[in-house]
Amino acid sequence: MASATPPTNIGVLLFPGFQLLDICGPLDALNTLSKQVPLHLSILASTLDPVSTSHNQGGKTTQGGPAFPDSNFSQSIVPTHTFKDAPKDLEVLIIPGGFGTRDEANIAPIIEFTKSAWAEGNLKYILTVCTGSAILAKTGILDGKRATSNKKAFEWVKSQNPKVEWVAKARWVADGKLWTSSGISAGIDLIYAWIAEVWSEEVADYIADSSEYERNRDAGDDRFAARWNAV
Amino acid sequence: MASATPPTNIGVLLFPGFQLLDICGPLDALNTLSKQVPLHLSILASTLDPVSTSHNQGGKTTQGGPAFPDSNFSQSIVPTHTFKDAPKDLEVLIIPGGFGTRDEANIAPIIEFTKSAWAEGNLKYILTVCTGSAILAKTGILDGKRATSNKKAFEWVKSQNPKVEWVAKARWVADGKLWTSSGISAGIDLIYAWIAEVWSEEVADYIADSSEYERNRDAGDDRFAARWNAV
Repeated sequence: MASATPPTNIGVLLFPGFQLLDICGPLDALNTLSKQVPLHLSILASTLDPVSTSHNQGGKTTQGGPAFPDSNFSQSIVPTHTFKDAPKDLEVLIIPGGFGTRDEANIAPIIEFTKSAWAEGNLKYILTVCTGSAILAKTGILDGKRATSNKKAFEWVKSQNPKVEWVAKARWVADGKLWTSSGISAGIDLIYAWIAEVWSEEVADYIADSSEYERNRDAGDDRFAARWNAV
Repeated sequence: MASATPPTNIGVLLFPGFQLLDICGPLDALNTLSKQVPLHLSILASTLDPVSTSHNQGGKTTQGGPAFPDSNFSQSIVPTHTFKDAPKDLEVLIIPGGFGTRDEANIAPIIEFTKSAWAEGNLKYILTVCTGSAILAKTGILDGKRATSNKKAFEWVKSQNPKVEWVAKARWVADGKLWTSSGISAGIDLIYAWIAEVWSEEVADYIADSSEYERNRDAGDDRFAARWNAV
């Protein structure tokens, strides 16, 4: 089912200690999609400093701290905007998970920005990958909604907000505008399911085939829930 | 089968127009592995400027050109070293593909660096994803070796060096030190197969399960060869 007006303005929210594939799985598919349909990407963070997949480096986060520590196995992605100077016309937010979600101060700017963007009423979708749904849960936006998350971290995620209808056995869950996925790699299936919803199944399959990706097409088929004792 | 001495020093070679997931699929798995075994990552490029997934921006590449164009849907990763100042003890090189491989001048530094590192004799493995094998083929290192590549681009890849024994129907191919994978997402299966070879199948499965990734375990099972008329 294709939407009447597909969104064009996509924002990715980064924090130190984000999980690399949570962002890069969906973005790689969207990079390819952007050659077929008009899409604009904003990568948002607290400052314009590169954001590292490593949360804590010598006691400091990368945002305002050292960018390229020699002692970590990490990568850094460059933001295009700060939260303060974010475009006003964002229609889709993508929120990753990662170990950085465990630090309240670290994710506070993400929570604040998401609440504010949601309140303004222009968002058509919020997509989360992995423990990104724990961040979204902390905004209150998921209250009473169905959602899933990383299965290895599921107990912790549930403890962040019991008002959410957490679904353990799901590759991803779509509840209206809110699309949450299971751990890390599940974000790739989420983005193809979302592309199928917004554009078409044919567009999603063409991009997945171009990426030589074998989609997991059943949102309810999730062996990792049992693997990590989430059910 | 675990290697006697697993490598610790890994280098990723970046050029403008690299395919994001070619790098981030393998690196996300290695990020997790690095929490269990000693691993050091160097991200190499011509300069220390961030390297964009977009090859050509206003007629200029990002290396020496504008880093964050407003008109493209792209992402930039920050190098840790230039090719000139690369560590001398690299044991593994990872080479991505992407549209930037089609520009001879753009990939010339990658070819030169790879040939030089190979000649020094310290490399235990070279891993390529997608059309990264076309770059490796241009070094001559793949001459007479079995290799695969992106199936949508397979005719172009084969034309780059007919002395390589190109294998059309393969998710990935391991020929001694040289591990080549099929398009984009196949790099994720490549890295898990490689982790299984160097450390163990158990380590590979634990990391894949943590990522909630459904591995494609059969190197010869490849429906994309027929999908893209490579066979």
